[in-house]
Amino acid sequence: MEFILASGSIRRQELLERLGIDFQILVSQFDESSVPYKGDPESYVETLALKKAENILNDKTRNSFILGADTVVCVKGKILGKPENREDAFSMMKSLQDNAHEVYSGLALIHESDGICETASIRTSVQFSPMTDEEITQYLDKNEWQDKAGAYGIQGSAGLFIEGIEGDYYNVMGLPLNTLYKILKKHQIIM
Amino acid sequence: MEFILASGSIRRQELLERLGIDFQILVSQFDESSVPYKGDPESYVETLALKKAENILNDKTRNSFILGADTVVCVKGKILGKPENREDAFSMMKSLQDNAHEVYSGLALIHESDGICETASIRTSVQFSPMTDEEITQYLDKNEWQDKAGAYGIQGSAGLFIEGIEGDYYNVMGLPLNTLYKILKKHQIIM
Repeated sequence: MEFILASGSIRRQELLERLGIDFQILVSQFDESSVPYKGDPESYVETLALKKAENILNDKTRNSFILGADTVVCVKGKILGKPENREDAFSMMKSLQDNAHEVYSGLALIHESDGICETASIRTSVQFSPMTDEEITQYLDKNEWQDKAGAYGIQGSAGLFIEGIEGDYYNVMGLPLNTLYKILKKHQIIM
Repeated sequence: MEFILASGSIRRQELLERLGIDFQILVSQFDESSVPYKGDPESYVETLALKKAENILNDKTRNSFILGADTVVCVKGKILGKPENREDAFSMMKSLQDNAHEVYSGLALIHESDGICETASIRTSVQFSPMTDEEITQYLDKNEWQDKAGAYGIQGSAGLFIEGIEGDYYNVMGLPLNTLYKILKKHQIIM
């Protein structure tokens, strides 16, 4: 049994290691901007996760399990992607502070030759404390905002400003472990 | 300004480092079994946190900030401490699986010469998935249950079985960072 993670995210790789399975990494080259957001974050992240997994499907990988994943931050009905620059990150933190938002992760597990195609999406609510502009500036100075949807990682120093969450913590990190564990059990990938 | 953490917990030390303050560690020798549990987990953890901080108070430390902390797991009105042996850990996991429980952490910050004595307690609910006896046995084989209240650490492999939480994740790890950050700001220990 060969298992492939279709993601270059170091955090996802570290989380998947906790499940104790051997896997290799093939980074999906799928262009996320080709999927328009139509207002339903759950189907959006499931679609992106599936497209990422399918992107590395070929004659060599059709007998392997391939896992795709995607995570977005959703505040006031708007999807926050990765900030383009520091100003963009500042404005994202302004919209998150003193507010609750939702994080959605999509999972897609495919096995072409066995005809397996399973997707799931998981939501976690995150409540941020009020932050002054000075606190946001101090936070941005740590340069953790780069390459992160919504300009923060819950496991980093933004964690100080999180009053609480409702749902799976690992979902906010990018890979909902409990749901993934159940899917892998169901397909007897882990015993 | 000198800051002392009155806890030998590696996890608490790592979490406190995230606040970016310099601190030293003096491990409290307070005997927790001397405080009887009277059915109120919040006042129980606050009392234990305070007793731990006071335990290292002396002529040398009376001009320092001292932080004490305590964390308990509470299921069906019963406090779960650290398991005495593997059988005890098995029975704790049996009571946690397919069930919600509460984790309470108490904080106490004292500064004797300035007359500062502030305590707080924070609650987080944790929902475990159903676990078969075989899954509990596989989990116990990893030996992560030792020296942990309730026989698990949320950051370890028990995390696979946690469907979700309500509240501060770091509270479950042993140090509620958001609440602590606010207390340290209030006393201008961090700016």
